[in-house]
Amino acid sequence: MLYKRNPQLNKNGELIHLLSIEGLPRDVIHHILDTAGTFLSVNEREVKKVPLLRGKSVFNLFFENSTRTRTTFEIAAKRLSADVLNLDIARSSTAKGESLLDTIANLSAMHADMFVVRHSESGAPYLIAQHCAPHVHVVNAGDGRHAHPTQGLLDMYTIRHYKRDFTQLTVAIVGDIVHSRVARSDIHALSTLGVPEIRAVGPKTLVPSDLREMGVRVCHDLREGLKGADVIIMLRLQNERMSGAMLPSAGEFFKNFGLTPEKLAWAAPDAIVMHPGPINRGVEIDSAVADGAQSVILPQVTFGIAVRMAVMSIIAGNEA
Amino acid sequence: MLYKRNPQLNKNGELIHLLSIEGLPRDVIHHILDTAGTFLSVNEREVKKVPLLRGKSVFNLFFENSTRTRTTFEIAAKRLSADVLNLDIARSSTAKGESLLDTIANLSAMHADMFVVRHSESGAPYLIAQHCAPHVHVVNAGDGRHAHPTQGLLDMYTIRHYKRDFTQLTVAIVGDIVHSRVARSDIHALSTLGVPEIRAVGPKTLVPSDLREMGVRVCHDLREGLKGADVIIMLRLQNERMSGAMLPSAGEFFKNFGLTPEKLAWAAPDAIVMHPGPINRGVEIDSAVADGAQSVILPQVTFGIAVRMAVMSIIAGNEA
Amino acid sequence: MLYKRNPQLNKNGELIHLLSIEGLPRDVIHHILDTAGTFLSVNEREVKKVPLLRGKSVFNLFFENSTRTRTTFEIAAKRLSADVLNLDIARSSTAKGESLLDTIANLSAMHADMFVVRHSESGAPYLIAQHCAPHVHVVNAGDGRHAHPTQGLLDMYTIRHYKRDFTQLTVAIVGDIVHSRVARSDIHALSTLGVPEIRAVGPKTLVPSDLREMGVRVCHDLREGLKGADVIIMLRLQNERMSGAMLPSAGEFFKNFGLTPEKLAWAAPDAIVMHPGPINRGVEIDSAVADGAQSVILPQVTFGIAVRMAVMSIIAGNEA
Repeated sequence: MLYKRNPQLNKNGELIHLLSIEGLPRDVIHHILDTAGTFLSVNEREVKKVPLLRGKSVFNLFFENSTRTRTTFEIAAKRLSADVLNLDIARSSTAKGESLLDTIANLSAMHADMFVVRHSESGAPYLIAQHCAPHVHVVNAGDGRHAHPTQGLLDMYTIRHYKRDFTQLTVAIVGDIVHSRVARSDIHALSTLGVPEIRAVGPKTLVPSDLREMGVRVCHDLREGLKGADVIIMLRLQNERMSGAMLPSAGEFFKNFGLTPEKLAWAAPDAIVMHPGPINRGVEIDSAVADGAQSVILPQVTFGIAVRMAVMSIIAGNEA
Repeated sequence: MLYKRNPQLNKNGELIHLLSIEGLPRDVIHHILDTAGTFLSVNEREVKKVPLLRGKSVFNLFFENSTRTRTTFEIAAKRLSADVLNLDIARSSTAKGESLLDTIANLSAMHADMFVVRHSESGAPYLIAQHCAPHVHVVNAGDGRHAHPTQGLLDMYTIRHYKRDFTQLTVAIVGDIVHSRVARSDIHALSTLGVPEIRAVGPKTLVPSDLREMGVRVCHDLREGLKGADVIIMLRLQNERMSGAMLPSAGEFFKNFGLTPEKLAWAAPDAIVMHPGPINRGVEIDSAVADGAQSVILPQVTFGIAVRMAVMSIIAGNEA
Repeated sequence: MLYKRNPQLNKNGELIHLLSIEGLPRDVIHHILDTAGTFLSVNEREVKKVPLLRGKSVFNLFFENSTRTRTTFEIAAKRLSADVLNLDIARSSTAKGESLLDTIANLSAMHADMFVVRHSESGAPYLIAQHCAPHVHVVNAGDGRHAHPTQGLLDMYTIRHYKRDFTQLTVAIVGDIVHSRVARSDIHALSTLGVPEIRAVGPKTLVPSDLREMGVRVCHDLREGLKGADVIIMLRLQNERMSGAMLPSAGEFFKNFGLTPEKLAWAAPDAIVMHPGPINRGVEIDSAVADGAQSVILPQVTFGIAVRMAVMSIIAGNEA
């Protein structure tokens, strides 16, 4: 075989799984964002419900706990009229020694239609997509340090909403990039959508230098990183993920890389400030910025539901 | 400002949140009870479902665990056709250091319609109601020692059902009053509804003496407290809430304040016996009373679903 | 009273609870299997949903945790359009000292329609069925070592599907029979359905000798047990249930009783291999068998949803 087909797309190039933004064609990304736009109005109606996934069984398989992310998928699926099953995987058969693939085979045999998968191991959603029955669709809700594609897509929706044209933008991603699957998904999306200047900003210990090979400009100085930026994506300082002493202290980090109104002034005057949440006030972002006029952190959450509805309805409609 | 408007009511005096019975006008309480009456018949139908909250997203935010109370709200919301999201708050973002108000802002941004809040801190539901978006409604499902308004309302429904007229009644509330948010909610409701004699009955350590300022008669002798009572509300002995030695022992408590058939004979012959559940048989109440002809403990549970349906449908229909 | 009526059947002999296969008439079993057949097609539709339990409240009461079994009942109930309430019993009122029967009385008072009960104590579902209100139906989802009737029924569905006629079959049940409620349910079902040769196969410590009184042939040699068998039901080695040293080691068990392709050849050439899952690969069954052409382990899972839909819809339609 000369090439390995992107496992997310069927032979017509239609999305059947969402595993990673890496390798997604630009038109597929724009189709998702366009579809999300139509769902945004559904979420503002009196009756926030469309019957697109009625009678479908969506399984939330969270091998790694994340109440917030699970909730966003659960709302999205219920507003599409799906039946949602939350599996408390930590306490289930896997604890009895059943393998991941046996669990998946069993749930597929129950006529599952979709798995929303969160896993601490990078690649787990790929493995599941490769082995599940052809009628089952897989959405990656975050795998290890690898990818968090729905977060990446909602970030793109947000940028497109406020800035319209990707091809003139300078986007700065700031903070703990090495541990961030969000940063990785954002960089792939921004590249595909034609953003000319993508910057990765943070201390040396938290910014992998091989990002340069992806066309990313690496900055270890915040002033340089923010200068003239149109979009600033602050990352969460993943305290719970840090092992050892990769940075001196939260206070030191805030002094050098925390976003305050003064530092925000280095960016373009109409720059927007984004954050995947939950925010650490006073660690990576000052409350005056998080709650300020340039913050679009809460609109990101709103767009996130619409983007997840778009992804779920699109893949459910395409055959393997 | 000369007065602070009741945060539960909009400018037309309509209920938009249910935070506490304190300050609720008598006609608002009767409107809730009347509405509950219509839902009681829904719960007896073959198809226990009305479409009043169809397409609405109701979030159960239980910062303090209570499977029983959560279940009653979940049933009520589902019978109103709402989408219900149960958030396991203890394991979610708050654990990652996110503030209560950031959690609320995020969920509001997901186009939540209603928060059902249980919290160990008194006042938490007020704080949430003050800060959430105008389209969101808040129901207090128990906050600290402060209030448990739906329990208070279902108690009023029960009393009205069996006794019709509040203005001739003697109501005795018996037991651990100092730790009881139910007692506080009941006392406010009974006062508002015109009950002429409200008694708080229990040992000195468990009955706050400032109740007298609320027009409550404090009795430290059970015989005096029960004499001629038309309604007896037994409280649960909150073993899990007692710190230190406020009472000698469960056995001693039962001897002095546990309700037995002999002691029940001191009350009016047609007195009803209520309890918010779960009951401690042989601690605050004897099985012969709990299961006896005068007990209305299980009807309280039935009425509770209808009252919660009433509250949720009323507030969802009123604009801030 | 000269006889005690089967508590699962009403006076017309119709199923109102499913507590055990023991005592179920043959025509009732066949009626369940026939009904399951109609639901199998529902599960293959685009919209996997029928309105038979619309507006009904189904409570999953899992006093013993089993995510997998709970999930199968939750899917089945949702595909019947019921409202499903999952009670985390371990953390609920029972933890506050409320008795099982008080919990049941409370949930019944909420107008529950059905309890799906899993309990580590044999007989708990019977106790609940005896004490719950007449409008409530009980399904045993596994009680102690006693019974697991829906597993037994889905096993019968599987055998009927592949073998059609029960009256010519040799069925071998292999492994840890003494700890297995599945084995007990299967033996009752196979007897009732007229299977002429039922074999219980395993080491002496894991096969109760009193099975002979039930007409079962006990074999302590796997070759003897499998010889000419048309159906092989492998049981899970319940490591988590074994107390003390009833068997030497998993390796030793596999050598003597683990099913490999070589040993499978002792059975009839068209024998089917069943397993209730989750499987322990390399302990009771070799992967080559579990994933092989004679394995019907995944079809069992598919049939299980249809059988549970059948049981729930049948009992909900019959009055006590």
